[in-house]
Amino acid sequence: MLKRLGRFLASTLLFACIANAQTAPQASREWTAAHRQQILDQFTRLLAIPNVARDTENIRRNADTLLGMLKERGVDVRLLSIPDASPVVYGEIRAPQAQHTIVFYAHYDGQPVTPADWAGGDPFKPVFRTENGETRIYARSASDDKAAILAQLTALDALHAAHIPLKSNIRFVWEGEEEAGSPHLEQILKANRDLITGDVWLICDGPVDQSGAQSVVFGARGDTHLEITVYGPRRELHSGHYGNWAPNPAMMLVQLLTGMKDDSGRVLIPHFYDGMKPLSPLEQEAIARAPKNDEKLKQELWLGHVDGGGKPLLEVLNYPTLNINGISSGRTGPRANNVIPATATVDLDLRLAVEIDWRQQQDRVIDYIRSQGYFVTEREPEAQTLLAHPKVAFVKRDSGYNAVRTPLDLPIAAAVIKAVETAHNPVVLWPTMGGSVPLGAIERAASTHTILVPIANYDNNQHSANENIRLQNLWDGIETMAALMAMN
Amino acid sequence: MLKRLGRFLASTLLFACIANAQTAPQASREWTAAHRQQILDQFTRLLAIPNVARDTENIRRNADTLLGMLKERGVDVRLLSIPDASPVVYGEIRAPQAQHTIVFYAHYDGQPVTPADWAGGDPFKPVFRTENGETRIYARSASDDKAAILAQLTALDALHAAHIPLKSNIRFVWEGEEEAGSPHLEQILKANRDLITGDVWLICDGPVDQSGAQSVVFGARGDTHLEITVYGPRRELHSGHYGNWAPNPAMMLVQLLTGMKDDSGRVLIPHFYDGMKPLSPLEQEAIARAPKNDEKLKQELWLGHVDGGGKPLLEVLNYPTLNINGISSGRTGPRANNVIPATATVDLDLRLAVEIDWRQQQDRVIDYIRSQGYFVTEREPEAQTLLAHPKVAFVKRDSGYNAVRTPLDLPIAAAVIKAVETAHNPVVLWPTMGGSVPLGAIERAASTHTILVPIANYDNNQHSANENIRLQNLWDGIETMAALMAMN
Repeated sequence: MLKRLGRFLASTLLFACIANAQTAPQASREWTAAHRQQILDQFTRLLAIPNVARDTENIRRNADTLLGMLKERGVDVRLLSIPDASPVVYGEIRAPQAQHTIVFYAHYDGQPVTPADWAGGDPFKPVFRTENGETRIYARSASDDKAAILAQLTALDALHAAHIPLKSNIRFVWEGEEEAGSPHLEQILKANRDLITGDVWLICDGPVDQSGAQSVVFGARGDTHLEITVYGPRRELHSGHYGNWAPNPAMMLVQLLTGMKDDSGRVLIPHFYDGMKPLSPLEQEAIARAPKNDEKLKQELWLGHVDGGGKPLLEVLNYPTLNINGISSGRTGPRANNVIPATATVDLDLRLAVEIDWRQQQDRVIDYIRSQGYFVTEREPEAQTLLAHPKVAFVKRDSGYNAVRTPLDLPIAAAVIKAVETAHNPVVLWPTMGGSVPLGAIERAASTHTILVPIANYDNNQHSANENIRLQNLWDGIETMAALMAMN
Repeated sequence: MLKRLGRFLASTLLFACIANAQTAPQASREWTAAHRQQILDQFTRLLAIPNVARDTENIRRNADTLLGMLKERGVDVRLLSIPDASPVVYGEIRAPQAQHTIVFYAHYDGQPVTPADWAGGDPFKPVFRTENGETRIYARSASDDKAAILAQLTALDALHAAHIPLKSNIRFVWEGEEEAGSPHLEQILKANRDLITGDVWLICDGPVDQSGAQSVVFGARGDTHLEITVYGPRRELHSGHYGNWAPNPAMMLVQLLTGMKDDSGRVLIPHFYDGMKPLSPLEQEAIARAPKNDEKLKQELWLGHVDGGGKPLLEVLNYPTLNINGISSGRTGPRANNVIPATATVDLDLRLAVEIDWRQQQDRVIDYIRSQGYFVTEREPEAQTLLAHPKVAFVKRDSGYNAVRTPLDLPIAAAVIKAVETAHNPVVLWPTMGGSVPLGAIERAASTHTILVPIANYDNNQHSANENIRLQNLWDGIETMAALMAMN
């Protein structure tokens, strides 16, 4: 099996030797070294614009700013809009005698923020911090995903300055709702089908391999969410006056959740893994060849044990998950009170594997809740409902998207790997990355394949407080983007 | 058994007929009716002073205000202080030819507040609201426990105005740390032993029977707390990149807690109920004679089921509890993120039954945590500790106090019941109330018995947002206090 993957990689290297894209990363390295302050100024100005998807006013400021940045570089631009959705920032460069059309996808919105949890107090006030000789920028979306956008813009500058011609038509599709689950992306793309077709979509999002090596990633987990609320008394009660009698919703939720997983993290909900597509021999081989980071990660993350029954992280990314994003009932710490809370809520995220539909996976969880004696309702229950059933669960379904895995051996995949290798060698091939990007929506709307080329450091605190990007990852990412833009 | 309790109650009624305390409630009813505005003005001024026990500056303002209010009424006053503790407000009235010394206990501190949860936005800005022809005052400590203090002060005014002589020496002990677990009360009382002795301590705290009938209560649950934190990764992780591999601390906590109780609310921790003193026949009889409120309560609280295996609320108050006051990990609702949280925390309160020591009960829970494969530490664990053990629990013990039940058939108990009956008839006798007041500390320091005479409405949102007192309960409470002050 190793031999087969070896032959495949060798063929891409062969391509690299006879091609002449070598100059693109080199040119961008030189240009970047000479313009660091200017690049960082642009970046921090961009990061200073708040970008939580539901903050429509600031989302619009982000879109307009990005439109301007593309326009300054001579790119044909427009906003792709539909009502009540963040606009997609769209740009296009037509290359004479182009062989390919390559679409660069990134997103300009970021995860919700809790400013109090940030060391700097303001997620939209970028902070530079140097530790162990390594500088990072801390801000929401520093890594996820404005760094990719800035790398693409800077790569254009570098190629232009070095007079390196583009050999493909380049299209930019920068979304403004990815962290909200891309609820309108497919609709927007389908309404602009002519603009967004391409031989491949390069998804510039997510972190590189934990070893630091550049990864090229052939799939992403799907994702969906369920919010589950269970009910105790109508109002919080004094825990002394009613303890042993009024049911505690936190304990009810605990008892409901506990049966969903075993001690090793395996999901026990019936049919949870049914229908999943197994890894191909080539995919298994890629996992076997990837750097072994798990032990180092355990140390770094202070983990005394891990889930997954001994399988490597890169493998278990290909299976569906059930994960508690958050649980809350009553209050803890200094704000704790002697109460029986009125409700308890859990936010579950369900990462999906190829061939498991997100609606089906939601149904499996809901069926399980029902099997535990709960009356399940999808609207907030009233007194009558609560009184009529011993246990009531209010389930809010989020939208979702399915997992995608692009076959490792497509011809366009070889070209992408080759281009990235001109910037960084060796590259690590991942069948699936952990992040969930809307690959399915893209593949359906644009009838194309997707490949992910991430640039962020793995320890970027993506989705959490103190999100950051290592400056070196930004510089490396610019080279990667330049190499891809100049690819044959 | 019913016959025995019947004889006991008849004897107290006999006392009532030959005594002449009848005038005290009557006098206070008339005085109260003529001075409502003045009483409410005093009350709202008192409620407007923030009173969370750790807010030392405002606690001091409360104490000084109360000292002034007692002094205006000719009471000998002083603050009983020790360093780093809220002072006890102390007052004394000596009656010529007194037969008894009666100590009136209440507390002037209140539970922590979360202003955003209050309808009025500010727990220290009292709001009057009338619904269904019934007016309530909403503010922190409106019921728990400044109403009792105001009722005692007003009862003094009424008795004074009607020239009704006190037949007992009266002492006031108003604590400022009850909601923080009375950590210094015993020490303060012991340092002032001569001041605080009495034939009985009347604890004016808690709600009356859910039927609205005046209750006289012979005990209180003890209480203590444990805060338990379990650990996932060192920092929050992106749930896509690490889900199925990095352990989720919320799920670990769920799995730890679930084994602590069964579906019916029975605690499964080994030895949890060991050593508990059973209810005496007289106590069982009192429970059997009390109004049957449980069905009405279920309806009112929208409860589709209750814990306790079919036993009435009044009975299960006599058993120890394990209750989740709060649980938190990650975030839920609009602030939820796609993360694997770093930690998960639960606040447990353990209500205690007679003859079970709070330290012993904490140990039982901790032993159970250990039995589930956890390394338990009582200081925040460092990297080394987390890496050395598959599962680590950081347990913070709170202080606590033990349960107390005063025998129903003491002579002083008969006198108290008789006095209360002059104001309200019938009274309901409870062996134990749900609230946990520091009866044990009082009994040890003052070598006396304690009896609780609550005045608040049962639905007062004690310990939660929108705490309130029904005005009628305040007026009734003034009569009760006057009757007790004038008792033979």
